[in-house]
Amino acid sequence: MEELTKFAPRPNGAGEMFQLLRDGRPRTRSDLAAATGQARSTIAARIDALMAAGLVVPAGEASSTGGRPPATFAFNPDAKVVLAVDLGATHAHLAVTDLASRVLVETDQLLPIAEGPDVVLSWVKTAGDKLLASAERELSDLAGVGVGLPGPVEHSTGRPINPPIMPAWDDVDVPGILRSHFKAPVLVDNDVNIMALGEHRAAWQDVNDLFFLKVATGIGAGIIADGALRRGAQGAAGDVGHIAVPGAAAVQCRCGNVGCLEAVASGQAIAATLAEQGLEARSSADVVTLVRSGELAASTAVRQAGRDIGAVLAACVSMLNPSIVAIGGIVAEAGEHLIAGIREVVYQRSLPLATQHLRIVTSQTRGEAGVLGASAMAVDHVLSPEAIDAFVA
Amino acid sequence: MEELTKFAPRPNGAGEMFQLLRDGRPRTRSDLAAATGQARSTIAARIDALMAAGLVVPAGEASSTGGRPPATFAFNPDAKVVLAVDLGATHAHLAVTDLASRVLVETDQLLPIAEGPDVVLSWVKTAGDKLLASAERELSDLAGVGVGLPGPVEHSTGRPINPPIMPAWDDVDVPGILRSHFKAPVLVDNDVNIMALGEHRAAWQDVNDLFFLKVATGIGAGIIADGALRRGAQGAAGDVGHIAVPGAAAVQCRCGNVGCLEAVASGQAIAATLAEQGLEARSSADVVTLVRSGELAASTAVRQAGRDIGAVLAACVSMLNPSIVAIGGIVAEAGEHLIAGIREVVYQRSLPLATQHLRIVTSQTRGEAGVLGASAMAVDHVLSPEAIDAFVA
Repeated sequence: MEELTKFAPRPNGAGEMFQLLRDGRPRTRSDLAAATGQARSTIAARIDALMAAGLVVPAGEASSTGGRPPATFAFNPDAKVVLAVDLGATHAHLAVTDLASRVLVETDQLLPIAEGPDVVLSWVKTAGDKLLASAERELSDLAGVGVGLPGPVEHSTGRPINPPIMPAWDDVDVPGILRSHFKAPVLVDNDVNIMALGEHRAAWQDVNDLFFLKVATGIGAGIIADGALRRGAQGAAGDVGHIAVPGAAAVQCRCGNVGCLEAVASGQAIAATLAEQGLEARSSADVVTLVRSGELAASTAVRQAGRDIGAVLAACVSMLNPSIVAIGGIVAEAGEHLIAGIREVVYQRSLPLATQHLRIVTSQTRGEAGVLGASAMAVDHVLSPEAIDAFVA
Repeated sequence: MEELTKFAPRPNGAGEMFQLLRDGRPRTRSDLAAATGQARSTIAARIDALMAAGLVVPAGEASSTGGRPPATFAFNPDAKVVLAVDLGATHAHLAVTDLASRVLVETDQLLPIAEGPDVVLSWVKTAGDKLLASAERELSDLAGVGVGLPGPVEHSTGRPINPPIMPAWDDVDVPGILRSHFKAPVLVDNDVNIMALGEHRAAWQDVNDLFFLKVATGIGAGIIADGALRRGAQGAAGDVGHIAVPGAAAVQCRCGNVGCLEAVASGQAIAATLAEQGLEARSSADVVTLVRSGELAASTAVRQAGRDIGAVLAACVSMLNPSIVAIGGIVAEAGEHLIAGIREVVYQRSLPLATQHLRIVTSQTRGEAGVLGASAMAVDHVLSPEAIDAFVA
């Protein structure tokens, strides 16, 4: 199974065939031959190799119109596990999942990213080992590690680039550090990208175009277009927090510009507004608490933040024409006020063609989006057609 | 060759192998076997079938390290031709191209789209026949037709949907009407999408993320992300003309909203501003003429339009992180004033990570972008892996 990470330049059809099985449905050798155009003898050999590795298991017999019913085969998501790591500004969320990204065990810990890579990654190693043990799996069962970080990440190298809220992490070789401990491939991406991926895979697999917006201490987005995450040229796509809000006050932003979405409508900005009104609000979590306690000023501020977000989202909707806009992040937990404000402005400001089939919803995966996406990113890598081809070769 | 349009459900490797040859480089049978992982005997049979169809031709011998030098084969873009149709608000531009989208003959005609589908499509049929004749090709040589229309198009059916400047075209079966005359598959898309595709293929093939902005009577965009055109859920992606310009005056737009980019910065809007100042300006073309004649008020107005466009483009750049922004459309012909205004605001308003490697340039394909893209769209369809598989099957 170590060879799963050694890529061959030469496709042999095994990976292509295996992708069909990843939906979990059992299939016969004939089904697979018909769907791939590969010879039945080739299919039989590939099935044998994947069964030997435990990635494919017998799944009973198909119904037959006469004669001996043919055997069926299915993907075995228990063959290996993946460690999913979602590092936020203040919290770390870890999970061990199977190869279908189902969470087996998980843990959540207050851990400010600003503690720096030494402290945070040491904790990830220790907590990861403990989680594997509590899932009763060995280190050798670990097929890969997926990590989300709260800042821009160069996807090809997995290194953070000039991350504003985590300066000590700039250009740190996160994949190398974790790989030397976990002995498995490590994939790293921006936290909002993995949340978008998690939300898409877990809740909207049939949707091709999804826009995921995280509203928390900061504001960011992840873009699914034609079924896949789009990261842009430097991995910075979805960085909507510093787009100017049309019509907003010229509030100073930490980026140096004025009137940025994040300066006007983030959880931090809402907390500041409420604090000016004499309320006890220092963080996004305080804002959610105030709204839930029925504090009118808090609901009003969250609704106005929704409108400001809506003004920028209207542009995103015109530009990308998604069919789902999913709102996640802790501020989305403050009930319907945020989404009501968002809907108000998006439906008013966007063209009818872009909104007639548009749904704006609260994230279905909520706090799990990050670990689900980190798992999916790692699984996609270790079970990619190229990886399976190399493994079977 | 008619079978090129009949898709088989069952891949046989011929299409996959053929895609490698589309770059024009000659390859040996062994090259193709190594690159695809298919058996050498399979490759040989596929090459024979594609040679019989004229799509592949012998391309001499490869150099050899000893023994008989192996034969090489190459894609033959002359095997068939494609009709590329770029229909704008006021002009029609037609070209016959080869299968590498090289223009063989072309024609340009003043033809308002508002004349309606009967008049316009009849002209396309007549002009298309004449162009084929002047290229000395038969109707049976025509592999496909690509069409760009100046309004929203449902890509799957090729029908315009509620097109604002061409109401008589709503839900017209453009592909059906042209197919019955040209006896070949017809692909239809929005004009800005095909311009983006044409610019990408002809000038920036190595760039994965390109944003194409057309500034003419209206304003629209086409999005290339991860190497392919992204159309969104209803084909409306890139519809940036009705995004609110941050900080702009509340100018009434024909869409019903105020302060839309198109109402503030399109060629039409610039012409209106200049007409108010007593200048002779009724159209985008008049604006370009005035700028070229050295009229200061016109240069100033175009530069301000550039700044307003820049304010919206900054949001597009933050959101999509392209490496190239190409500005096309007739207003881009007005020299450097437009692009200077755009650059001024984009570099001021976007995050450093998104702009450090960003280039904002004038379209390299200029007036040819539309026909080049229409041709590429048709060629991609008729030479797709599925089409070639079906043809060879």
